[in-house]
Amino acid sequence: MSIKFGIIGHGFMGHEHETMLTQMDGIEVTGICDIQPKQLEDVKEGIIRYNSAEEMLANPDIQVVIIAANNNQHLDLVTKAANAKKDIICEKPVAMSVAELDEMMKAVNENGVKFTVHQQRRFDPDFRTIKEIYDQKALGDIFTIKNQLYGFNGNMHDWHVYISEGGGMLFDWGVHLLDQLLWMIDAKVTSVFATMKNVINEEVDDFFNIQLVFENGITAEVELGTYYLKDQPKWFERHWFMGGNEGSAYVDGFDPEGRIVRTTGLLTNVKGSRTMTAAGPTRSFGNPREGLIVTEELPEVHTCHENYFEQFIKAYHGEEEFFVKVPEVRRVLRLMEAVRESARTKKSVDFE
Amino acid sequence: MSIKFGIIGHGFMGHEHETMLTQMDGIEVTGICDIQPKQLEDVKEGIIRYNSAEEMLANPDIQVVIIAANNNQHLDLVTKAANAKKDIICEKPVAMSVAELDEMMKAVNENGVKFTVHQQRRFDPDFRTIKEIYDQKALGDIFTIKNQLYGFNGNMHDWHVYISEGGGMLFDWGVHLLDQLLWMIDAKVTSVFATMKNVINEEVDDFFNIQLVFENGITAEVELGTYYLKDQPKWFERHWFMGGNEGSAYVDGFDPEGRIVRTTGLLTNVKGSRTMTAAGPTRSFGNPREGLIVTEELPEVHTCHENYFEQFIKAYHGEEEFFVKVPEVRRVLRLMEAVRESARTKKSVDFE
Repeated sequence: MSIKFGIIGHGFMGHEHETMLTQMDGIEVTGICDIQPKQLEDVKEGIIRYNSAEEMLANPDIQVVIIAANNNQHLDLVTKAANAKKDIICEKPVAMSVAELDEMMKAVNENGVKFTVHQQRRFDPDFRTIKEIYDQKALGDIFTIKNQLYGFNGNMHDWHVYISEGGGMLFDWGVHLLDQLLWMIDAKVTSVFATMKNVINEEVDDFFNIQLVFENGITAEVELGTYYLKDQPKWFERHWFMGGNEGSAYVDGFDPEGRIVRTTGLLTNVKGSRTMTAAGPTRSFGNPREGLIVTEELPEVHTCHENYFEQFIKAYHGEEEFFVKVPEVRRVLRLMEAVRESARTKKSVDFE
Repeated sequence: MSIKFGIIGHGFMGHEHETMLTQMDGIEVTGICDIQPKQLEDVKEGIIRYNSAEEMLANPDIQVVIIAANNNQHLDLVTKAANAKKDIICEKPVAMSVAELDEMMKAVNENGVKFTVHQQRRFDPDFRTIKEIYDQKALGDIFTIKNQLYGFNGNMHDWHVYISEGGGMLFDWGVHLLDQLLWMIDAKVTSVFATMKNVINEEVDDFFNIQLVFENGITAEVELGTYYLKDQPKWFERHWFMGGNEGSAYVDGFDPEGRIVRTTGLLTNVKGSRTMTAAGPTRSFGNPREGLIVTEELPEVHTCHENYFEQFIKAYHGEEEFFVKVPEVRRVLRLMEAVRESARTKKSVDFE
């Protein structure tokens, strides 16, 4: 039996969900609602259109709703859906604060409904490639991990330009970039230092640099800018770098390209040999001798965003746990609050 | 009349000074000393060899000494040279602490000798290229500046592997990278957050990431690793990135290569258009449309390390002030102490 879905909000992500879910076995899209009638004009044939969440939630056929409305509506919509005994997938960020999440979880728990969050970018192939190298311990002890994403638009889209609607890049993409790191690295984050700016956008953050100090010795950097320009192919996609004491790895682009890089040896001759560069003598920097740098191919991974819903279906039928758990998204929300506090005070924040 | 120089310490930098200074008009290298006799074997013909600084300082012909001994010997040697009424150029870092600098300045001031520091990398062409773009305000309001340098050796050379001798990369190169930023950016540094690690070296730091928050809205990052690998041409040289609200600039390599990069327009259409990438839909990231990204050539600069001594000669003869001033190097030393404190405590440090 297919699980009957209702989609709340037919904006950018609502359309994406409609496209993906109508193509998947095990799921049937029964209804879509939006408070703006214009947004419903292109709903696919055979799907019931509703002018409000309340109307759709009254349909007893619908088992699961996926909430894809503006971020500032999540609390209200989760509460209503839970009270209507619907199981729920909420878009990210699940809430605009930890307090909001805790409030929505009261309604979820009181009504005994299922609840998870659409952190589908845990299946991003570039992330999974870095995660595979990390899990294999292929680089020895890791000292740094960078997760960087740069854009050319400057401004953000639609309601994302308004603080009151839950806009800004920390909520839009930061929640993914941080979730990926916290999910991958099994260690406490002891301290957080962040810079956030609105470089182009009038209200909302469109640049952030976040330093995360993990208890296991890793320092991670998450950096995103919507106006951070280079004239290089695939620059405006994601860039991972991971450095360990047995090598480095870089992964560029959502369709991952990169290498594991090692050296055939380390410096042991401490004589006065030098490298002449354009900036004068340095023994430590400049071109390595031929053959010193060696590379290996990245591990192959085969993941895609459909995997999120494939797993959801299994979990919904009781075969597995839900992939994205509430304590995990709560931790990311707490971390985003620490990021904002650090950026505001320009001081580091002790985290865990 | 040429200025008569004595070089204290005939190691890596002592040799560099010998090579450069013996080719310059206005300077004559009269003597070189080293406490290790072996180090004196290749002193050029015509230069007097001394087995100790004391012996060389007793030569009344020598007007200026350049101190190129291990960092932990600077205080003692500056004091002795000042007491011998020699004018002094000290290698960087001028001292191992602010307290040491203050102590050596007492001897300098009591003896009324001239004193400056060899921060010659203020003349690095790649740095000057970024500085030229900065000074021209060519990118609008700057939000980020990165100064990054990566190596393949892992281990450091000679005495740089020992903490007690003043080793480690913060002292060796960090002092330059920080000095460049503080000299370029005319604003207070309000807070500092740093990570330092010894990834390969047993004792000394060989990786650091330093976040500097300037009062004028710029956040700068200084990052260096001696084992931070990519298989890209010129990777193991310096990388600058500067981002402003009217464009970005990158400068790679000591012999600067890069571009100023802008867009022909920013996002104004906030409709639901999207970019499909390998990681699923995103409207904010992916390939820009043809023609959106435009570039300009970097400004040309013509500086080199000889300029440091050319300027020294003029200043020595009273025509100009010394290029590198004691309050400037003291500020960099203070900043390095804040960096170490932040790295030790894993907390940000309020600076100025």
